Amino acid sequence: MSRSPGRLVTLADVETAAAAINHQVVRTPLLVAEWGLADAPLWLKAESLQVGGAFKIRGATNAVARLDAEQRARGVVTHSSGNHAQALARAGRAAGVAVTVVMPSQAPAIKREATRAQGAEVVLVDISERAAATSEIQRRTGAEFVPPYDDPAIIAGQGTIGLEVVAQLPDVATILVPVSGGGLISGIAVAAKALRPGVRVVGVEPELAGDLAEGFAAGQRVEWSSADTGRTIADGLRVTAVGARNWDHIESLVDDVITVSEDEIVAAMRRIVVESRLVCEPSGAVAVAGYLRYAERLGQGPTVAVVSGGNVEPARLADVLTRTP
Amino acid sequence: MSRSPGRLVTLADVETAAAAINHQVVRTPLLVAEWGLADAPLWLKAESLQVGGAFKIRGATNAVARLDAEQRARGVVTHSSGNHAQALARAGRAAGVAVTVVMPSQAPAIKREATRAQGAEVVLVDISERAAATSEIQRRTGAEFVPPYDDPAIIAGQGTIGLEVVAQLPDVATILVPVSGGGLISGIAVAAKALRPGVRVVGVEPELAGDLAEGFAAGQRVEWSSADTGRTIADGLRVTAVGARNWDHIESLVDDVITVSEDEIVAAMRRIVVESRLVCEPSGAVAVAGYLRYAERLGQGPTVAVVSGGNVEPARLADVLTRTP
Repeated sequence: MSRSPGRLVTLADVETAAAAINHQVVRTPLLVAEWGLADAPLWLKAESLQVGGAFKIRGATNAVARLDAEQRARGVVTHSSGNHAQALARAGRAAGVAVTVVMPSQAPAIKREATRAQGAEVVLVDISERAAATSEIQRRTGAEFVPPYDDPAIIAGQGTIGLEVVAQLPDVATILVPVSGGGLISGIAVAAKALRPGVRVVGVEPELAGDLAEGFAAGQRVEWSSADTGRTIADGLRVTAVGARNWDHIESLVDDVITVSEDEIVAAMRRIVVESRLVCEPSGAVAVAGYLRYAERLGQGPTVAVVSGGNVEPARLADVLTRTP
Repeated sequence: MSRSPGRLVTLADVETAAAAINHQVVRTPLLVAEWGLADAPLWLKAESLQVGGAFKIRGATNAVARLDAEQRARGVVTHSSGNHAQALARAGRAAGVAVTVVMPSQAPAIKREATRAQGAEVVLVDISERAAATSEIQRRTGAEFVPPYDDPAIIAGQGTIGLEVVAQLPDVATILVPVSGGGLISGIAVAAKALRPGVRVVGVEPELAGDLAEGFAAGQRVEWSSADTGRTIADGLRVTAVGARNWDHIESLVDDVITVSEDEIVAAMRRIVVESRLVCEPSGAVAVAGYLRYAERLGQGPTVAVVSGGNVEPARLADVLTRTP
């Protein structure tokens, strides 16, 4: 049974997003990794140096920028306990738009406080009631719901990374992107494939959260349990399935999806920190782990790995540094 | 007793250096630190992301670029066990110029190997014979001696950081620079003061290696013992006195010299790593430590701290991360 895909985000959408967000986000550096392979030089797109330490601010800022005056006055709402909530809070504050974040009452206090510190209102509910509570806030306030990845504005915002990569490295051959809900890889694929039809865009997942790798091989979106995806150290990549809209982009535009082990993620993280001097979180090391594992399968030419974020607990980072490599 | 200063390096020298080295060095990012003070926003010039993980490649590449054909054929020599040796080795290899490094036989094997890995010949001698052995190599081979800081080409090369800072942040009010031999601050002061006469350029030293702070207050260059300067954790800043030529630049161009404690260096390093997600070495955190300690004395306006390098042992970094802040 086939399903007709919705309209995909276009290069023009991504370029519009870039114009809307460029004054609020960092054009992150693309840094050569001197420890890359000779025939596939490795470049790191350091989104760990982005505002808030992760790429999420791009999509969130674009989603807020696309609101009209009435929507701005009514505010936005999301449910999340992670980087998307903080990014939306930050983007809303910068634009003078009220942000409400529905969080499970079990979420760590540090995440609640970080989101409040960005000026958002945090509403705590039992995890089973998140969706209902969000709908209730939408009904009551008219707030616009901003989902974390299954949304054209979010995809277009994350896609600005693709524009920058092509500008920074015009002969890029391969772009490796970590996959969770699929917003990042969808946007990057739109921009990079439109500007460089020959570029390979490859998704990378932890083996323990390999729902897209399984679905991509089978030709249909699959969902894993959160008990399964929750096993990986890469806490940013535990979403149980890519979004429906993200699946449409990935099916149309992405060349391959590969997976890496937990040990490979930790080893890649160590190399990024020690040899390229970038602090990165486990999720941010997954694309580099894919590069190190699959050099032959990926082919030759300049290769970009997106280091998607650098928000790691100091104790976790210290642990990675003191393990024997 | 006053001494007439030699000719200072000029803005034109720095601009010539920039044209000579730009294709071989990274234009490092200038990143806003969200944890800076409201009335003196903090920006980090991330030389930790430079080729080789430190600013030294700028001066070394410029020194090699300024050789004529005969000098190139005869090669270069230096004596150092640190970043300058590795930077010169790298710059020489890139330009096809032979590099000899005289090192004390007591130098750690890891430093010898790192310098050899960059293609240099390493000559081991007793530390008391370093200068004599270097002179002997110069006589025998005709190699050009490239000192680590007391040299116009080195100063002009490091000064390219000043050009970049002014281009990246045109309204910069203060630039904080760690001081060891004085090559970095001399070059930055030349460029920044020529382009922005009102900018403040301030040197920062560890209290335990505060030879320039003492000399600057007294109006004359002073030298400390290596037993004294060797006490600081900031191993890149243990030079016992700034160079004579560097003193001339500093006396003419630098506004202030401040010092920081060992605890303040460690605290600054932790903030740079955890809150700005840049790996930095202790020497690279000294300018930020100065910012955190002397906010009032430094005055208002956008403030740049040069994060001079990121070459830190993983175990040392882990130790800093696990200390209670």
